[in-house]
Amino acid sequence: MGNARTGGIAVIFVAARTTEDDAGYAAAAAAMDALAARQPGYRGVDSVRGADGVGITVSYWADEASAVAWREHPEHAAIRDAGRARWYLWYRLHVATIGRSYDWAAP
Amino acid sequence: MGNARTGGIAVIFVAARTTEDDAGYAAAAAAMDALAARQPGYRGVDSVRGADGVGITVSYWADEASAVAWREHPEHAAIRDAGRARWYLWYRLHVATIGRSYDWAAP
Repeated sequence: MGNARTGGIAVIFVAARTTEDDAGYAAAAAAMDALAARQPGYRGVDSVRGADGVGITVSYWADEASAVAWREHPEHAAIRDAGRARWYLWYRLHVATIGRSYDWAAP
Repeated sequence: MGNARTGGIAVIFVAARTTEDDAGYAAAAAAMDALAARQPGYRGVDSVRGADGVGITVSYWADEASAVAWREHPEHAAIRDAGRARWYLWYRLHVATIGRSYDWAAP
């Protein structure tokens, strides 16, 4: 779960899966989650996929430099190529600077 | 679907639903989607809920002023109170300024 604090970077990834290669996708997604979590500046991730195959993943980073370093990580770049070839129908990505955050939980 | 352009605001809302009052929640969510879409500066929304009840909704706004005006809209504020009372176990919200965006679709 994400625990971004004010001032970090949120990378918002909205994507529609193809119906192809669920096993390959799941393995790659798990590998990328584990690899991302070991990168400097990683602050967490929130990820949800709906029954229609559209998912939103928000990863949180300490700063712009750590978000860019993750984008340019060679294994991550290779997986993105595979994603465009096999796993995604479309995606949209927004890189945004967090200005403020609020948390709430039921008492 | 969102079609935010660079420079706007993304409001990232990550929330876990209770198992209560699905009908009331669905009606309120539809009403809020329709009301949000009529606000000045509204640029779209991406929303996904997973089978475990955790959802991510990202709404996109032209600027900080329009995002704040939506937060302070009286009907929206009333629905937030209902959400805390009945519909959500917890939520986290991040308000972020979009620095850059990328779109991709399969050829």
